[in-house]
Amino acid sequence: MLSKKYLLIDAERFTELASEFISKHISLSGVKGAVVAVSGGIDSSVTLALAVRSLGSGRVRAVTMPEGDVTLREDITDVMRLTRMLNATCDSIEITPALNAFKSMLPLYDPSDLISNGNIKARVRMTLAYHYANTLRSLVIGSSNKTEWLTGYFTKYGDGASDLMPIADLFKTQVRQLAKHLGVPNRIIEKAPSARLWPGQSTEGELGIKFEILDLVLHGLEQGMDVHTIANELSIEASTVIRVQQRVKDNEHKRRLPLILRLSSATR
Amino acid sequence: MLSKKYLLIDAERFTELASEFISKHISLSGVKGAVVAVSGGIDSSVTLALAVRSLGSGRVRAVTMPEGDVTLREDITDVMRLTRMLNATCDSIEITPALNAFKSMLPLYDPSDLISNGNIKARVRMTLAYHYANTLRSLVIGSSNKTEWLTGYFTKYGDGASDLMPIADLFKTQVRQLAKHLGVPNRIIEKAPSARLWPGQSTEGELGIKFEILDLVLHGLEQGMDVHTIANELSIEASTVIRVQQRVKDNEHKRRLPLILRLSSATR
Repeated sequence: MLSKKYLLIDAERFTELASEFISKHISLSGVKGAVVAVSGGIDSSVTLALAVRSLGSGRVRAVTMPEGDVTLREDITDVMRLTRMLNATCDSIEITPALNAFKSMLPLYDPSDLISNGNIKARVRMTLAYHYANTLRSLVIGSSNKTEWLTGYFTKYGDGASDLMPIADLFKTQVRQLAKHLGVPNRIIEKAPSARLWPGQSTEGELGIKFEILDLVLHGLEQGMDVHTIANELSIEASTVIRVQQRVKDNEHKRRLPLILRLSSATR
Repeated sequence: MLSKKYLLIDAERFTELASEFISKHISLSGVKGAVVAVSGGIDSSVTLALAVRSLGSGRVRAVTMPEGDVTLREDITDVMRLTRMLNATCDSIEITPALNAFKSMLPLYDPSDLISNGNIKARVRMTLAYHYANTLRSLVIGSSNKTEWLTGYFTKYGDGASDLMPIADLFKTQVRQLAKHLGVPNRIIEKAPSARLWPGQSTEGELGIKFEILDLVLHGLEQGMDVHTIANELSIEASTVIRVQQRVKDNEHKRRLPLILRLSSATR
């Protein structure tokens, strides 16, 4: 049976592995530390906590990048509380000046096109995070979780762009288990998931499914289970499972390198 | 013996393959066409010519993104001449407003840090190209060649970011062969290679080696040839070959996805 218990993790063991993973790759890369973009959401909070656990707060720079009226005051408060708790230095950069510049430059800019404009925001944040990484000789640690990675719920070359992804093999519900273990404040754990690209954006609303169900659907598909078996076991429509399956397939391009035409038959 | 003749390509055959490659993936992705960022350099000129050959000029949008005093007038003239020759629509977007915004936002901004600032430029151009792709329902076709791809001579998530890379398995000297075949103007083929991120930037100057030699070194390494054999055959220092080899290794992270910590032993 597909049930929550299949997604239980050993959070302490995972924390150890993540800590080793991060410090090993920082060391192999010959850089000094890590940059983590934080939003006040659970994924980036967990990622920051892991980075600090691994490297110590002195080698980690948190950067939060709020946007005018779009960013909630509670998210800013939560970032401040979290970084204080972790004793991590956190810079705050308002992204509106860059967004206004892009708006003024793009002839096809349409204020009502939430997706295209959300992509600009995510890419502006990536550019800022990488400037920190460049100047501090650090890697960027990304906060994507497995649920978002598989469903393509991220901006290609935006929030999906980083050097290391410690939680990208954890489903959202597993990230929650880890967050509790790491002592991430409950306020952060319990808030509604959102990419925070426009006011009121809701991940579950956009995906049309709750993470508790989605994670089990993805787990079932990964285990090679049949669509109808998954639907039956979770008491949901087969069409819902098929929609998830299609979404994973349609977004494969976001999880791979650009496709390269290989030279072979064209060589003399 | 390592000699130029090993890098000869059948340009006509390659053009056919590239044309099929582009149209196949545009079709599989269910999008309408392609966006190509063009600089007036040979790589983006060849890429645009291939895209037009594959899709017809009506389904291709060229975008050129000059920067104030940094972009040479001759590059702008060459872009105009090329796009007219190919009958391709080309939009021009001055990137200075976005760069000024980033400058004003970044506390660690240092005008003398050419690399970090060059990365911002490349990422701004990527963000603009993807906005075109989003709004025109198109893919971004990247212009990286194999020499740059292997040596990491590009900005991660900047000019290295695209959906399809038709010439990324062609060395720079092979791109020149292809350019001649495609009728790219000689002025473009013959100008000194540059990433155009700051005035006077020279690719060969930064890499410290001519493409004619570098391509053969990379080819030799790829064939599994020994460092000293390559050095002897090309009459260059072994240290030059070792430096290239090291550069390819150091830049591997730019040619792979973010590293993911895989869950396994942490699952109960």
